[in-house]
Amino acid sequence: MRAIDRRTLLVASVGLGLSVWTGDLARAQSDPLPSWNDGATKKSITDFVARVTTQASADFVPPDQRIATFDNDGTLWIEQPMYVQLAFILDRVKALAPLNPGWATTQPFKAVLDGDMQALAASGEKGLMELMAATHAGMTTDEFHKIVSDWLASARDPKYKRPYTELIYQPMLELLTYLRANGFKTFIVSGGGIEFMRPWVEKTYGIPPEQVVGSSIKTRFQMRDGKPVLFRLPEINFIDDKTGKPIGINEHIGRRPIAAFGNSDGDLEMLQWTTLAGGVRFGLIVHHTDAEREYAYDRQSHFGKLDKALDAAAANQWTVVDMKRDWKRVFPFQ
Amino acid sequence: MRAIDRRTLLVASVGLGLSVWTGDLARAQSDPLPSWNDGATKKSITDFVARVTTQASADFVPPDQRIATFDNDGTLWIEQPMYVQLAFILDRVKALAPLNPGWATTQPFKAVLDGDMQALAASGEKGLMELMAATHAGMTTDEFHKIVSDWLASARDPKYKRPYTELIYQPMLELLTYLRANGFKTFIVSGGGIEFMRPWVEKTYGIPPEQVVGSSIKTRFQMRDGKPVLFRLPEINFIDDKTGKPIGINEHIGRRPIAAFGNSDGDLEMLQWTTLAGGVRFGLIVHHTDAEREYAYDRQSHFGKLDKALDAAAANQWTVVDMKRDWKRVFPFQ
Repeated sequence: MRAIDRRTLLVASVGLGLSVWTGDLARAQSDPLPSWNDGATKKSITDFVARVTTQASADFVPPDQRIATFDNDGTLWIEQPMYVQLAFILDRVKALAPLNPGWATTQPFKAVLDGDMQALAASGEKGLMELMAATHAGMTTDEFHKIVSDWLASARDPKYKRPYTELIYQPMLELLTYLRANGFKTFIVSGGGIEFMRPWVEKTYGIPPEQVVGSSIKTRFQMRDGKPVLFRLPEINFIDDKTGKPIGINEHIGRRPIAAFGNSDGDLEMLQWTTLAGGVRFGLIVHHTDAEREYAYDRQSHFGKLDKALDAAAANQWTVVDMKRDWKRVFPFQ
Repeated sequence: MRAIDRRTLLVASVGLGLSVWTGDLARAQSDPLPSWNDGATKKSITDFVARVTTQASADFVPPDQRIATFDNDGTLWIEQPMYVQLAFILDRVKALAPLNPGWATTQPFKAVLDGDMQALAASGEKGLMELMAATHAGMTTDEFHKIVSDWLASARDPKYKRPYTELIYQPMLELLTYLRANGFKTFIVSGGGIEFMRPWVEKTYGIPPEQVVGSSIKTRFQMRDGKPVLFRLPEINFIDDKTGKPIGINEHIGRRPIAAFGNSDGDLEMLQWTTLAGGVRFGLIVHHTDAEREYAYDRQSHFGKLDKALDAAAANQWTVVDMKRDWKRVFPFQ
């Protein structure tokens, strides 16, 4: 009986060992970044993650400090032929125009109603925020959440004829998952409206609302029929772009990221803030080089202009993703 | 051999069953809230948690929506004879007074230098924020972090002669741990300065910096000798008190809490926002009734005034903690 017990134990042990071994093998064989072509770009990511997550490494970073911040427009999802939120704004301006006759002669509203994209882009981030305040205010936060969700359910991108939430970058989705699997906490830090993103980013990127930093308008607390609401006011509260990004990061997260991902000059200060204060840090710029599968644009673009940050990437040894060369595919549906 | 295999299996199964059973027993026997006396107050907490965490329950709330917000001053740590941050401010004002001769004749600075607590309290939250701006600005965020940490290491409370970070409420620490063990994400939402809290709340409460909402001053991004810093400006950015609490919650967290914990009129709107929009929700007010072990104060207090919120608690069926009756001990060291 004793011998048989031993045999039972042995079989059990071998079975256990085998399952551990096959588990390791499966993990080793499954590439966590399958949509990234092998090469220096991909290696820079996996090398960084290995350095900061290896306990024996001098560069080890404890999990609670593994903060990674991602721009949204042009970094996680499409931003051409215009910011998605701008497409939303155009629809809202057109819908609200009959109630606001003055808009026909006032910029940036006139540009929207005339379909004059040049004039609209020229109004810049500030013009965009004016449009946001005018079209995003005058309702409760819950009502706005519903307006955004309803719009996203029906709106289609002009080029791909798909919902915008499908026009997200598959390699970046894999990167988000890979970082989280390695103990990182992933945040969005976007010039886009914080309340425009929150209704859909959790389902789309696995990033919960409390890990979203963005531009915002002011709100007012009110009791309505005994129920508390937050009413959205036509007044800009914060613009989370350029120097606003490190400010927003400090305010919302309260510690410095160790990795930051962007694609335009609006991300320059976030990348500086993240990478230039010492320690092993990681900065990455998505360079849109693929006119065939997506769009090719950089220094001259009205949306997602990448000029100073491209020069800074070379100077600071940030990784620059060449979409055409580095990505096996761009969108999940391809 | 077949019989013996069966017997081995049986022994293994019984062993497994036994360990599961003893595990349950150990869990059932260990009270997660040992510093709370048994009674209606404690039961209201455990009943709520059971309702929202039981999958079969109609009131089940998925873990990602189990957001709980806690005021800090008077709810998690002491706020008498004055807010701890005010004690910090007094020290800073005294240290900086020689460089600011005008303060001797200008309120609220005069009150600080004269030691006139009545005049100081009369200047209210606004006066406090003026003092904050004047004493908390003019340095980088990293420098301020160090100033706060150094001060907390040496400062002692006048009554207990202990570091302020020991003057935290043991029953509330247990409550934080209990909620987190039940899948809740715990946040601080305080009128106190967000950057005054972040250096120490993770070690003290287990709440990471990114789960802290508080009052703030504006910062400016600068490059200094090639290193990015955020410079603190003497300009108020946000006051996270009263109606500011739901606004701050919405901005930082982006979803409505299902449980909120406070102790003063400054928490009224947070409790309304949390509990009055439908669903099974939980509101709790810590009522300071124990003059012997701590302090007894409510409707007439200069700090942590509890008046309207106490009436609202009765009207809205929020739990009111009677510290003297409900808490076995107040501080961890007792």
